[in-house]
Amino acid sequence: MEKVIADQEILDSIIKPTSIAVIGASSKPGKIGYNVIENLLASKYEGKIFPINPNASEILGFKVYPTILDVPEPIDAAIMTIPAKLVLGAIEECGQKGVKGIIVITSGFSEVGERDLERQIVEKANSYGMRILGPNIVGVLSNTNKMNASFAPTLPLPGKGALISQSGALLIALDMATFTRKVGFDKLISIGNMSDISFADLINWLDKDEDTTSISLYIEGLKDGRAFMEACRAAKKPIVALKSGVSEHGAAAAASHTGSLAGAANMYKAVFKQAGIVQASDLGNLFDRTLAVSLQPEFRGDNLLIITNGGGVGVLATDAAEKYGIPLKFAPQDVQMELKKYMPEFGSAKNPVDLTGVASAEWYESSVRNSLMHPWVDALTVLYCEVAITHPMDVAMAIKKAVDESGVKNKPVTVSFVGGVESDKAMQWLVENNIPAYATPDAAVNAIAARRGRSVKPHEARERS
Amino acid sequence: MEKVIADQEILDSIIKPTSIAVIGASSKPGKIGYNVIENLLASKYEGKIFPINPNASEILGFKVYPTILDVPEPIDAAIMTIPAKLVLGAIEECGQKGVKGIIVITSGFSEVGERDLERQIVEKANSYGMRILGPNIVGVLSNTNKMNASFAPTLPLPGKGALISQSGALLIALDMATFTRKVGFDKLISIGNMSDISFADLINWLDKDEDTTSISLYIEGLKDGRAFMEACRAAKKPIVALKSGVSEHGAAAAASHTGSLAGAANMYKAVFKQAGIVQASDLGNLFDRTLAVSLQPEFRGDNLLIITNGGGVGVLATDAAEKYGIPLKFAPQDVQMELKKYMPEFGSAKNPVDLTGVASAEWYESSVRNSLMHPWVDALTVLYCEVAITHPMDVAMAIKKAVDESGVKNKPVTVSFVGGVESDKAMQWLVENNIPAYATPDAAVNAIAARRGRSVKPHEARERS
Repeated sequence: MEKVIADQEILDSIIKPTSIAVIGASSKPGKIGYNVIENLLASKYEGKIFPINPNASEILGFKVYPTILDVPEPIDAAIMTIPAKLVLGAIEECGQKGVKGIIVITSGFSEVGERDLERQIVEKANSYGMRILGPNIVGVLSNTNKMNASFAPTLPLPGKGALISQSGALLIALDMATFTRKVGFDKLISIGNMSDISFADLINWLDKDEDTTSISLYIEGLKDGRAFMEACRAAKKPIVALKSGVSEHGAAAAASHTGSLAGAANMYKAVFKQAGIVQASDLGNLFDRTLAVSLQPEFRGDNLLIITNGGGVGVLATDAAEKYGIPLKFAPQDVQMELKKYMPEFGSAKNPVDLTGVASAEWYESSVRNSLMHPWVDALTVLYCEVAITHPMDVAMAIKKAVDESGVKNKPVTVSFVGGVESDKAMQWLVENNIPAYATPDAAVNAIAARRGRSVKPHEARERS
Repeated sequence: MEKVIADQEILDSIIKPTSIAVIGASSKPGKIGYNVIENLLASKYEGKIFPINPNASEILGFKVYPTILDVPEPIDAAIMTIPAKLVLGAIEECGQKGVKGIIVITSGFSEVGERDLERQIVEKANSYGMRILGPNIVGVLSNTNKMNASFAPTLPLPGKGALISQSGALLIALDMATFTRKVGFDKLISIGNMSDISFADLINWLDKDEDTTSISLYIEGLKDGRAFMEACRAAKKPIVALKSGVSEHGAAAAASHTGSLAGAANMYKAVFKQAGIVQASDLGNLFDRTLAVSLQPEFRGDNLLIITNGGGVGVLATDAAEKYGIPLKFAPQDVQMELKKYMPEFGSAKNPVDLTGVASAEWYESSVRNSLMHPWVDALTVLYCEVAITHPMDVAMAIKKAVDESGVKNKPVTVSFVGGVESDKAMQWLVENNIPAYATPDAAVNAIAARRGRSVKPHEARERS
């Protein structure tokens, strides 16, 4: 028990430290040891920053100390940007100083065959009760803690989920993509070689973190499958994972890239299912499903209702529902009776509910509110095909209003608007108001299916035991 | 033979008419009979426009004629926007006038059970040698012919492919989405109830049209599967199709929406494969695959080479290759020897070719050029993970330069940049320069796989015969 509590504190000191030493701090723009301090400043980090460098006196306005032992105050986390061969010595000094967590950005360890050196730094750190994130990482970024402790150029667009990435390059690229995809994260954590701190450690920590609603993973290869499984099973928050290297040739490519063994597609699929992990099929899907699981409640039960103003998108969504394991059922008579009030004669109240192209924002509002409040409906996907008769933003606001006024908080809702610039704006507004919205009906249904990831049905529970 | 030639001329008169009568032209903004004329004007249509309405004298500057028989000049196409019950009489007059093609925008036919009326208008038109597009359609849009003969708000973003859509609402929404997705079309054709002119007719015509490089279809249900199959098999241009209503429940929903029978997923999959059609999995994929087939040559052979600056995206692309039926092979020694010149010691020339994060635009240029020119390489997917060391636009320009300077025109190339705003801009520039670019490695590989759709391997040829 004591170790778990200690780990919790150490991870606190790595993910939300109140003081950071940058060992290898540099006064030269372009150097990682400079970027990290520049980024901490730019992100308005509120903790203390101590640059360490025997050959400098001041960097970006901060007093520089020759060694960490010269710093007169306690230090939570030490970030290493010094060459690999100097890391072991620096860790020894960190241990003497009483640092809690070590973030090793430096590369040149097991990923290039230097396994002994990597083992040595972990042993050294652990001997002082410290733990290591990395090596070979980009760093740690947190919107809540206003901390860009990395060489990634900026904090991500704010969101509610956390992302742990085994690839540093991809973490940087995804960080930038949060702004173009309009899907944010609260935290981005680069895990690199996983010499010490593992996915399991971070999942345990994030599951308890009150600023994180969901956990997304980009996994190239796992080192301790059992601990990973246990952490995922124990987690109360939804976990979405993209596993790369699931093809035969991909596994070989991954092995040469990271040095850790990537497994077969089916094995991971089975493992993920058992652990209640929502699998992402590609990078786009990782963003899409993260959006849904980070913003929406669990999809308990089987009944997805689809509301649309276009027969075409309704049928596409119906196909998608079957594809993603939620075959639609016709709504019961009382649901249909109610919905018939908000559509013309030629509409359909069955499921998908087709309000038809003449649907007004008011019809959307009434049908969404009443559907959500009916006990038969477990989840709702609302589709809108852009038509001249209604403005996309009016429909978006009607949906949001209906969701809020229904008072229903335990049923997930996703949306898809198919259309042009105005539909895109309306969808962005919905996302900013915590309703996941997607450019295709398929993606909206795929996203709501992701919210079923952790619900355990009787036969699944049996499989697990 | 004569009938085929006649049909060709009739379809010419519908898709690129030199004169149009709008029967039901209106002077009231908001009416479809007004919108169509307004849209013809806005699209700078260069043919003649004759509004027909017994109760108006001038609409948007055009002289209005009481009936089509009063028009003193010959007319290629008549667009009907009058109520359904008046269409039959108007078609009689069109026949007397010598009109060639009829575009019936009006709804209220077989989709609401009026099958007899629909049959009557077709019989009437055919009796005069005319043919009907529709009824229950949005109209016809063509960038090449500067013609928005529809009530869709605008011509689509220009592109090289044509799209035929069975759903009018979806056609309008996709029209608008061409601008946000940055994937254009040359033509959009709404096919509606397919009372007379079928998918097969339009595919035959588009296959011969010199302004069309590929044909995309949104299909809800086919009426004449045999003719459709024959048209697709005979077509020399690539065909991409999204079939909706492939799920059990979706088929039921589709039947209530369009009145035509939607079939099972597997049946369509088999039919499409036999006909050499590239299937799209959803609306996003329809855009993605259209982009590739409309811009890139056929992927003949089996050898896809992937070039990347990021191990992570390389592995994801490798997984995607296996998923989409193009398992990667290691490049032969001479290819590897050449590529080794453009990467650091720790790069990999196997496949995926990892130029590593330090890759310059020059390395991209050299490796793309040399790969394309090597006979082993049949197709190329180039990946770039946004890093500080290179600017995305420089990499995009290097790729384009290498493709051009290689002189190789018979191997498809797709690209994926993972990153932020600058990566998006670079990808848009690539698309404008005829190189399909996608936000994820998975999509880039899926797109290049789409270019294999029509290549017939020996065992497939045997299956066909």
